[in-house]
Amino acid sequence: MAVQDPHRPSELAAQLRVDAVRASAAAGSGHPTSSLSAADLIAVLLARHLRYDVHDPGDPGNDHLVFSKGHASPLLYAMLKAAGAIGEEELLTFRARHSRLEGHPTPRLPWVDVATGSLGFGLPVGVGLALTGRRLDRLPYRVWVLCGDGELAEGSMWEAAEHAGHEGLGNLTAIVDVNRLGQRGPTRHGWDTAAYAARFGAFGWHTIEIDGHDLDAIDHAYREAARSDRPAVVLARTRKGRGVAAVEDREGFHGKPLEDAGQAVAELGGERHLTVSVAPPRSSREPHRFPGGPYRPPEYEVGAQVATRDAFGAALAALGAARGEVVALDGEVADSTRTEAFAAAHPERFFEFYIAEQQMTAAAVGMQRRGWIPFAATFAAFWARAYDFVRMAAVSRADLRLVGSHAGVSIGPDGPSQMGLEDLAAFRAVHGSTVLYPCDANQAAALTAAMAGLSGVCYLRTTRNPTPVIYPPGTRFPVGGSRVLRGSGRDAVTIVAAGITVHEALAAADALAADGIAAGVIDAYSVKPIDAATIRTAAEHTGRVLTVEDHWPEGGLGDAVLEALAETDAKVVRLAVRAMPGSATSREQLEDAGIDRGAIRRAVHDLYALAAR
Amino acid sequence: MAVQDPHRPSELAAQLRVDAVRASAAAGSGHPTSSLSAADLIAVLLARHLRYDVHDPGDPGNDHLVFSKGHASPLLYAMLKAAGAIGEEELLTFRARHSRLEGHPTPRLPWVDVATGSLGFGLPVGVGLALTGRRLDRLPYRVWVLCGDGELAEGSMWEAAEHAGHEGLGNLTAIVDVNRLGQRGPTRHGWDTAAYAARFGAFGWHTIEIDGHDLDAIDHAYREAARSDRPAVVLARTRKGRGVAAVEDREGFHGKPLEDAGQAVAELGGERHLTVSVAPPRSSREPHRFPGGPYRPPEYEVGAQVATRDAFGAALAALGAARGEVVALDGEVADSTRTEAFAAAHPERFFEFYIAEQQMTAAAVGMQRRGWIPFAATFAAFWARAYDFVRMAAVSRADLRLVGSHAGVSIGPDGPSQMGLEDLAAFRAVHGSTVLYPCDANQAAALTAAMAGLSGVCYLRTTRNPTPVIYPPGTRFPVGGSRVLRGSGRDAVTIVAAGITVHEALAAADALAADGIAAGVIDAYSVKPIDAATIRTAAEHTGRVLTVEDHWPEGGLGDAVLEALAETDAKVVRLAVRAMPGSATSREQLEDAGIDRGAIRRAVHDLYALAAR
Repeated sequence: MAVQDPHRPSELAAQLRVDAVRASAAAGSGHPTSSLSAADLIAVLLARHLRYDVHDPGDPGNDHLVFSKGHASPLLYAMLKAAGAIGEEELLTFRARHSRLEGHPTPRLPWVDVATGSLGFGLPVGVGLALTGRRLDRLPYRVWVLCGDGELAEGSMWEAAEHAGHEGLGNLTAIVDVNRLGQRGPTRHGWDTAAYAARFGAFGWHTIEIDGHDLDAIDHAYREAARSDRPAVVLARTRKGRGVAAVEDREGFHGKPLEDAGQAVAELGGERHLTVSVAPPRSSREPHRFPGGPYRPPEYEVGAQVATRDAFGAALAALGAARGEVVALDGEVADSTRTEAFAAAHPERFFEFYIAEQQMTAAAVGMQRRGWIPFAATFAAFWARAYDFVRMAAVSRADLRLVGSHAGVSIGPDGPSQMGLEDLAAFRAVHGSTVLYPCDANQAAALTAAMAGLSGVCYLRTTRNPTPVIYPPGTRFPVGGSRVLRGSGRDAVTIVAAGITVHEALAAADALAADGIAAGVIDAYSVKPIDAATIRTAAEHTGRVLTVEDHWPEGGLGDAVLEALAETDAKVVRLAVRAMPGSATSREQLEDAGIDRGAIRRAVHDLYALAAR
Repeated sequence: MAVQDPHRPSELAAQLRVDAVRASAAAGSGHPTSSLSAADLIAVLLARHLRYDVHDPGDPGNDHLVFSKGHASPLLYAMLKAAGAIGEEELLTFRARHSRLEGHPTPRLPWVDVATGSLGFGLPVGVGLALTGRRLDRLPYRVWVLCGDGELAEGSMWEAAEHAGHEGLGNLTAIVDVNRLGQRGPTRHGWDTAAYAARFGAFGWHTIEIDGHDLDAIDHAYREAARSDRPAVVLARTRKGRGVAAVEDREGFHGKPLEDAGQAVAELGGERHLTVSVAPPRSSREPHRFPGGPYRPPEYEVGAQVATRDAFGAALAALGAARGEVVALDGEVADSTRTEAFAAAHPERFFEFYIAEQQMTAAAVGMQRRGWIPFAATFAAFWARAYDFVRMAAVSRADLRLVGSHAGVSIGPDGPSQMGLEDLAAFRAVHGSTVLYPCDANQAAALTAAMAGLSGVCYLRTTRNPTPVIYPPGTRFPVGGSRVLRGSGRDAVTIVAAGITVHEALAAADALAADGIAAGVIDAYSVKPIDAATIRTAAEHTGRVLTVEDHWPEGGLGDAVLEALAETDAKVVRLAVRAMPGSATSREQLEDAGIDRGAIRRAVHDLYALAAR
């Protein structure tokens, strides 16, 4: 073997290939062929262009490298070994139980910013990181994103292309490994990099088409990309399985370890154990931060009529004044969600993503990774558009604050397309999530402030129309808590409500009291975690619980209460939206859905009659 | 007033504007300004280009017109009045309780193919309709889609652009109402139609830029579009609120009725009541249909090890042979989901959408609207990418058969990005949905066949790895049913499982029997509707139910069982995935998640000890 120079990309590329093959062989699964195609691209990047202190992955000056094609994880791990970040022994734990080297990358590895493996997610996050570098951190780090060609079919990639082009993110380079073979066969455009170049070019990117196995061409392309004042994409024609004749550019070898790994390693020149000294960050400056100040929450008088979305907006603006790390993201509905209040007060920290919920979510993921506290808001219904990104944010251990306005049928005449009716179910089913649903303005403001300190994915559901303020300013609302609004030892039933239905429950309880039936009312503003202790205590007394929610019957408040009472013998009746709504006024909608004060009253009477038998 | 000729677009446009204003005024809400901008575009279409028998909206030769900008519903309803489809009286019920004229269009109106209002949905559905016209129905109808400029920020629009361009859908015309104003302010590109033209052009579309208030230019544009053998987009510069000086091209008037509707109507030339004779369909031919034949389901021997995804694929291919209306849609994972079996048997009815789950879903919506029976499959996890489209499919009253493979931690080493762990929650929370989760190959085949006859959104969850066949071929599995696999009068507990956990439950029950504890086992293959009666009967005997599922704890099987038992005093313990998984073997994953046979056995022992106290 010739002299091995780790900074000679050809040597390094050979090692990356060998190690990708070895790791996959050790695992007995994985995507070596998808790694082999991109090895030259990564070798040149690591040896010549990346600026990163691998011994201090938290260094704020570090470049970011996102493997949007997360299935090329063997290549990522081989790269981390070559960079001296992980050792040979750990490399061979790939995909083993308890290993940090998972089948697809996650931030369990400190060098990984974000979990990938759901294609179409990494580039939008990269856009978020680049945007953060430019407009928030104001540091010269670069963002590199390794993409697959197959994932360019995802619409989210074009949301990213549009946003990056519009923002002129010259600090972003997408590297597309155009290996022409997807999972089940050829991609739509094969090796036609001109097709991709036309698309990226139309979205305002600088495009560079190269042979992705020509090391000099790669080097020149990265230099050219770095000089561009626009986002650049390096469209690299490669061969899947490159370097191993048995699989090179052949179909049917996606996601499979090589049959004869030993032969492949030999064919690739044998094992090497070079270590690259990755160039240090360009800057040792600290990230820019905006000044903070005292927190002056908005306060609302009891009895006033205020929409919780208004209180959220005001509280977010106040939070922004208090904490310079707080930023707000909009999907072109800031006037509806009320993040416009933040936009007016803190324009430098307000980000308009237009109607692109996936890019908005991904940008929030990027920003929180850099230490910012993003709040992103759209209609509750439209969070469904970004559900996979929220799921991937949870896998990424991201701290996200998401807000959905216009929840439920109570929005009124706009109709079901605009009604968030599955959002509680969707967000409750996100791992580690928090789901909050305020019923009044002071509560909404308090919960908004609380969100800033939470980890994981946090979701706040707000209401379009005004509701009465029932809590005095300054009332505390701990996450995981609830408020007992009516309760006596004589209660025949406990009504558990949240948000808009709290007011219906209170009105029903008053009417029931006049009917001679005492009913407890719990405001379960923390839908997840639900205040199981309080609900259980109430249920022990009454034995009967009625839940009422402006949501489909599945997965929302009713199910949360059922979970809290699963191991008790309490009986639960659930009022929820059970028929597809149309248009009507807010009050008609609540009535038609059977979740208004009249329906609650009737349901309690039915329960009472049942109990009396 | 001059002679009114309904086929003079200027007269018609004036009427459309007036009626949009009047309908919104009657409702006290709505989007008149978004209707005014597009009125000329629709007037020319209706008077000169649309081919449609409004008195027979089911005529298979009818063109399709999708309002992707669904908030322009006043314009749509004004158009339906002008076409003689609805009357003056109904027009003024806009947004009223029980009216078919909802805030955003839904197929409650027979002239509406699909619900819109979630921007970015209509064009992908239009692509599906155009694809159906070309490749399935083989009829010369055209598909017209009215788009907003704001919604071009949605990635789904570019999935549609890519797919239509690739398929060369010359029967599709997108009309973009470039009124430059979004909801909260100017759009990203304003009136820069060249920016949009560059993008659509890059995706292979024929582009036409016009003044959207020049009636002759519109007419010529539609003619040019119809002549193109590629999909065409008419990029029309318009003024929001056109024709009413108080709001024309001014910010702050999105989604609001006009303050002085009477003045606006006068300014627009006053009320008119013209009726257009819309040109008849181009063809009276019946749609093409593929021949059917006998259904020969795959059969598996009890004891064989077969993955349910394999059985699904084989059953789908068999179903395709039996019923010519069955089609299959793939998101570039047909080798994993096993729809490749259908692709091999019925290549003309197999549709590859590459990695574009939203376009795949929208195409299925379009196909079912035309009477086809689409099955669309991807990984369970990746359905999250299309969740809003699934939601909108439910609002559209669409009959969809969706299949998610690779469910749960049992997939093994690929890690959490590839694991569907929230799919049951998400699909259960879709209005009118059916959720099925087979545990063995014969059951999977039977449920696949059953799906063809279901209405609404139906979801089938399959398992990656082989599981033992436990049911003989020919066993019936009614939707809404369950199978009691173990049960005796002596049962101390009832275990409810589905899919992969059925086998864990059976093994646990066997081990428990050896421990001297009788445990019932119910296979709840129909997660929604759940077989509440059978579960309640079992719970009445045992009083204790243990649920076990390869899914997060929220919203899945455990919650479905809780709902079934809500009004009983049965106690329920739920085993589910509670920690973020990493990589490991399938068996290790089940063990680590605490949902394997050992965990079930321990949980039953705990319950038993509790009961004995």
